[in-house]
Amino acid sequence: MNSATRIIGIDPGLRRCGWGIIESLGNRLTFVAAGTVTPPVDGSLAERLAILFAGLGEVLDRFGPSEAAVEETFVNAGVRSALILGQARGVALLTPAARGLPVAEYAANLVKKSVVGTGHADKGQIQLMVKTLMPAADFKGADAADALAIAICHAHHRVSNQRLKALA
Amino acid sequence: MNSATRIIGIDPGLRRCGWGIIESLGNRLTFVAAGTVTPPVDGSLAERLAILFAGLGEVLDRFGPSEAAVEETFVNAGVRSALILGQARGVALLTPAARGLPVAEYAANLVKKSVVGTGHADKGQIQLMVKTLMPAADFKGADAADALAIAICHAHHRVSNQRLKALA
Repeated sequence: MNSATRIIGIDPGLRRCGWGIIESLGNRLTFVAAGTVTPPVDGSLAERLAILFAGLGEVLDRFGPSEAAVEETFVNAGVRSALILGQARGVALLTPAARGLPVAEYAANLVKKSVVGTGHADKGQIQLMVKTLMPAADFKGADAADALAIAICHAHHRVSNQRLKALA
Repeated sequence: MNSATRIIGIDPGLRRCGWGIIESLGNRLTFVAAGTVTPPVDGSLAERLAILFAGLGEVLDRFGPSEAAVEETFVNAGVRSALILGQARGVALLTPAARGLPVAEYAANLVKKSVVGTGHADKGQIQLMVKTLMPAADFKGADAADALAIAICHAHHRVSNQRLKALA
């Protein structure tokens, strides 16, 4: 671990898909960039997914992360909502995978626990902790903050996994 | 309508994604090709979606359809299944849309009604009617037959829509 690893976290959504890029070196986290892809709601579903794909693709090409992490979104709003979210989530997983990046998945409550210390944090607490862990973090809105939290969760887990491998 | 329109029908699925290419000229349908993309089950979800994207992309590049149709799959197996199917469906919608093709969506029972005459046809009846409508059709399995049925459904509807527009 002599050079920093650049990680993208993605919070999937069809209306607002958050993304956040950080660098991880040992226990040190550095903010790189964050934002939200917002496909216009008036297009067809296929057009909106294509805009999401192009938007995330631009972010990947511009910032060149080498690893990706996507939230395993919990759905409690019925089968129809799950299908819609699944479609956006499929594109969020695919876009980095199609560029050859490894894509890790983390349950929403694990992301919260990694960043805030409890699996039941609200959006405000997540934004506050992202700011505390990375004071230079500059982001607007809950989706970009959630995406940064996913990237932070991955940074923590990949270091733990490397230590476990080194011990084995 | 002086030249044939080449259409791809896609029956989305993560384990087996059927595709079928036909040409439509007036009321005449011609079989071009059909098959199934089967991402290996041992990869990560993101890797499987990337293989689906690459496989459907190869089919689009090879056969060059100008329009796409995807089944609006009905899910009655719970939220978790809907999320999984949604992810594959997102990639099935995205792949032609990312290449600039218009992508139509048809409910499963409308596809059955277009091809068999009733919204409650079983897989065997669909395969039989695809063979009856296009005797040259050469396909293996229900997924490729379903994909051809989706393409046929789109061929019927696009002709009706053009006639309605001509009358307006």
